[in-house]
Amino acid sequence: MNSTLPDVDLTKLPTRAPKHVHKDETKREMRKIREELVEWQERLYAENKRSILVVLQGMDASGKDGLIRRVFSGINPQGVRVYSFKEPTKDELAHDFLWRIHQRTPGHGMIHVFNRSHYEDVLVTRVDKLIDDATAKQRFAAINHFEELLQQAGTTVLKFYLNVSEEEQEERLAERVNNPSKQWKYEPGDDHKAGQWPAYRQVYEDVFKHCSPPSCPWHLVPSDQNWYKAYEVARTLRDTLADLNPTYPESKLTRPE
Amino acid sequence: MNSTLPDVDLTKLPTRAPKHVHKDETKREMRKIREELVEWQERLYAENKRSILVVLQGMDASGKDGLIRRVFSGINPQGVRVYSFKEPTKDELAHDFLWRIHQRTPGHGMIHVFNRSHYEDVLVTRVDKLIDDATAKQRFAAINHFEELLQQAGTTVLKFYLNVSEEEQEERLAERVNNPSKQWKYEPGDDHKAGQWPAYRQVYEDVFKHCSPPSCPWHLVPSDQNWYKAYEVARTLRDTLADLNPTYPESKLTRPE
Repeated sequence: MNSTLPDVDLTKLPTRAPKHVHKDETKREMRKIREELVEWQERLYAENKRSILVVLQGMDASGKDGLIRRVFSGINPQGVRVYSFKEPTKDELAHDFLWRIHQRTPGHGMIHVFNRSHYEDVLVTRVDKLIDDATAKQRFAAINHFEELLQQAGTTVLKFYLNVSEEEQEERLAERVNNPSKQWKYEPGDDHKAGQWPAYRQVYEDVFKHCSPPSCPWHLVPSDQNWYKAYEVARTLRDTLADLNPTYPESKLTRPE
Repeated sequence: MNSTLPDVDLTKLPTRAPKHVHKDETKREMRKIREELVEWQERLYAENKRSILVVLQGMDASGKDGLIRRVFSGINPQGVRVYSFKEPTKDELAHDFLWRIHQRTPGHGMIHVFNRSHYEDVLVTRVDKLIDDATAKQRFAAINHFEELLQQAGTTVLKFYLNVSEEEQEERLAERVNNPSKQWKYEPGDDHKAGQWPAYRQVYEDVFKHCSPPSCPWHLVPSDQNWYKAYEVARTLRDTLADLNPTYPESKLTRPE
């Protein structure tokens, strides 16, 4: 995976699995990884010293909800918490943009998943021209400092961008209109959003350029296929946990040798 | 299940599955229920109008953690949140006893699980003689009003007491000492706790007597066997969701007839 990413061009990055990857084999592997995640989460929770923050970003209809279900269902919910960041409330807007985010970072032993995040404050706000470039720059720096703070306190921050192609996004948004079981997801703004891929592409590329320190890179995940996307995220999480290698704490029992 | 429970005698209530219940059959049924729960949770979340609060109480080693894993793993974690209430912090103690609880009640579409709850404030506090009987009475009334408030706002409150026998509890606490993979759960106070079953029995019986309005009964779950306990809780939750019968909302699409 890339660490720093000067001048990313999203149109040149893959949105589908590499040719040599087979779907059936990947699904088998995915089942194994899910079992491993169950075990690693238990150790992280028992150890009670470190934590993981999974940040999920992606354009509309890039499949964030489905990914959360595919990767995190099955893990003990006592150790996993998912937060969706929607439009800020009045009270949240009365504070700095990281205020509501900071309240939801994981404590020792926990895995938190952010479905959208502090990055929205340099994405949708820029596309809708609510902030200027100078403010965006300030926020990039603030985000880098914030993520550094978390990592220094034992929270590994994993950032995933679900890279979906303009064509696939269009198709999925159209499905919300035409598939009765998906119509409840349709929002009146969706038609408008469908045309915004190029605008979002630009602000995302700017995020990757400015918020990718070596200690906290973005993982750009090919996301036109749900099975491959979930696999990539689950595998990265598993590998991260294996590196952390949390262990069951010493017994508090005192007894004769 | 019982609704109001005047003068419950915990020593006379079952701690094991009824004779006619078969373990294998129950486990098969449990798999089916877990699939149904996945579907119902999705509807509750999509409907986004009502919510469920699951309150879990039980003495030490009654198996609350394991129950949460057995019943709620597999459900989309985006719609489920588990909160453990431990000893209150200084800031929490500077407020009324429901202050920290109220902040964690479920919003529309959510299922929250309380691993211990506001009931600790009329349980451990009484056993340790931190409050007198008059204060306990006040708190019973406050709890009933609080749960009524939640239910009026569309939150179904499901209260489960995991009824474990004195013998089984003793055995499980001993296992924390003798089983290397469980030693990390051992707390220095455990030896002391083992002798407190009768004291806790008494304050629990008082809770069942005073906090069981017909609209919000306690479910007393035989809990010496993990498979049966999980089944009882899962089944009650499934039945509750089926009664609520949440539906996918109308499409927001407007189009010609």
